[in-house]
Amino acid sequence: MPESDRRPRLTPAVADVRRAVRESIADLPEGALVLVALSGGPDSLALASATAFEAARSGVRAGAVIVDHGLQPGSADIAERAADQARELGLAPVRVMPVQVASDGSPEAAARQARYAALLQARKEEGAAAVLLGHTLDDQAETVLIGLARGSGSESLWGMHPRIGFLRRPLLQVRRATTHQSCRDQGLEAWSDPHNDDDRFLRVRVRHRVLPMLDEVLGGGVALALTRTADTLREDAEALAHFAQEQILDLVEHAEGGLSLDVGGLGANPPALRQRIIRLAVQSEFHVALSRQQTLEVSRLVTDWHGQGPIHLPGIRVTRDGRRLVFVAA
Amino acid sequence: MPESDRRPRLTPAVADVRRAVRESIADLPEGALVLVALSGGPDSLALASATAFEAARSGVRAGAVIVDHGLQPGSADIAERAADQARELGLAPVRVMPVQVASDGSPEAAARQARYAALLQARKEEGAAAVLLGHTLDDQAETVLIGLARGSGSESLWGMHPRIGFLRRPLLQVRRATTHQSCRDQGLEAWSDPHNDDDRFLRVRVRHRVLPMLDEVLGGGVALALTRTADTLREDAEALAHFAQEQILDLVEHAEGGLSLDVGGLGANPPALRQRIIRLAVQSEFHVALSRQQTLEVSRLVTDWHGQGPIHLPGIRVTRDGRRLVFVAA
Repeated sequence: MPESDRRPRLTPAVADVRRAVRESIADLPEGALVLVALSGGPDSLALASATAFEAARSGVRAGAVIVDHGLQPGSADIAERAADQARELGLAPVRVMPVQVASDGSPEAAARQARYAALLQARKEEGAAAVLLGHTLDDQAETVLIGLARGSGSESLWGMHPRIGFLRRPLLQVRRATTHQSCRDQGLEAWSDPHNDDDRFLRVRVRHRVLPMLDEVLGGGVALALTRTADTLREDAEALAHFAQEQILDLVEHAEGGLSLDVGGLGANPPALRQRIIRLAVQSEFHVALSRQQTLEVSRLVTDWHGQGPIHLPGIRVTRDGRRLVFVAA
Repeated sequence: MPESDRRPRLTPAVADVRRAVRESIADLPEGALVLVALSGGPDSLALASATAFEAARSGVRAGAVIVDHGLQPGSADIAERAADQARELGLAPVRVMPVQVASDGSPEAAARQARYAALLQARKEEGAAAVLLGHTLDDQAETVLIGLARGSGSESLWGMHPRIGFLRRPLLQVRRATTHQSCRDQGLEAWSDPHNDDDRFLRVRVRHRVLPMLDEVLGGGVALALTRTADTLREDAEALAHFAQEQILDLVEHAEGGLSLDVGGLGANPPALRQRIIRLAVQSEFHVALSRQQTLEVSRLVTDWHGQGPIHLPGIRVTRDGRRLVFVAA
């Protein structure tokens, strides 16, 4: 293949995706291996192409993992076609991982769980330094909006983390329109997942109905606003988690079958921190995640103390004993 | 008027609104005066009725303020009618305050500004302990959604505060359907503001198009989820503001024409707190609110120091001088 064909045209879209990948892998040492999680769809295909280019430039090796969920007829062929595309882009190794998706619970959650397990297994087997995922800014906005609507607290608004463990998401600041354009500019033929048009999936409904309507009513820029908000909230939450971790060391005493916290110390903290310390204590000792309601109930033993009796949480009894809040297995 | 007519039927809706008011004014001493901000619409009318009842029960005096914005033909008549209703409910004093709404800028913002100024003036002149506003859970959800879509950071997600200064919003946990039902149950005839159906207003579009669509796609409960999220975020923000206030005292030194912050102390804090300390320092010294971008730029003088030059913000120059970050008027 002549050089001019192998090196794609440098359009703005191609350059944007490359820049995002470049920044995401800049810290990797020469000779390290990154694996692109490739579905064959436009986001991950644009990511694979940009990673092949940027990795070569910075002395990093780039391979691909294609997870075959086995959920659609012909999924093995689709996976093989994506593997071929990865090899054509110069990626090596290229691994196809067939997985078994559990049939109980939410199908989306089960597929996700199987996918991440396979990605991390491939990472381990290949000794890769990182696995790159093709989630875009639009995916992030959808995630934030779904979390918001479910109202499970501020954590639901964080969206996906740009970097967590071995997983990196270089394209969280890149629009879906850009990855699609990048594929077109490079003549890369992406696979169009029929699930992406299946209105039975909440995410698809959010993508095709909610976000366009929000943009129309609110005057555009909603996806960007949502992701910017998620970034700030993630930072806020990390700061509060940091202070909770720091403070709990001063307040906690471990005892037979449980622990206790200093009431004065808890009371001196603002509510958001007091609640986090209580949740953190229960989580670390009993591996139970308290709901907001439960946490507030425990909190009242500190802030609204009038000699009330113990609080019974699942498997835990909480009592106030003088200046200590005592948590024991029940 | 016979007793049976003056005391409205105690339906679930009437009881819910009363309970919310009761909790909101429980801390007021006997003989104190509360003023209900009354538009004549169903939310504030239900609030006025419940306040008349609960205030009488707890020895608090209850009056009303009706702001006449003068923006619609016949607005003075509407205000007078609301004043009559307030008097019929037994509220006293009843004040009608005509205001002049500025014609520049957003008409919604200008009306709001004029309204709050009038409310606070009435409070002062009457020596009231609090002014009660009729915003409901649905209003709160709309506010959060608008803030979110604008993406101006986590603060935009706080929604309206249940209690700030002299203003209290007893109905933030009460649904709009409940206040409307409460009026019907009591035979109170509420005024229907034509602005509430005017699609030119963003809030109206959010109310009539966005929230119903979100409920439909996401399976209901969106308004409740949004307000619950706002509550958590407000708490988080208050905790971080608390720590920023606390820490800045250790880090700041005042100097001729500006101040400086200790680089080591800033660097030891998590990003969310570092950014808040920087913003707080600039706000308190120069009365300038930095954007997120500007704050991050200043922050890089701490976290990514490689001898770079000063940063020029509107009216302020920021330089790094050894272990100090120096802010001076420019």
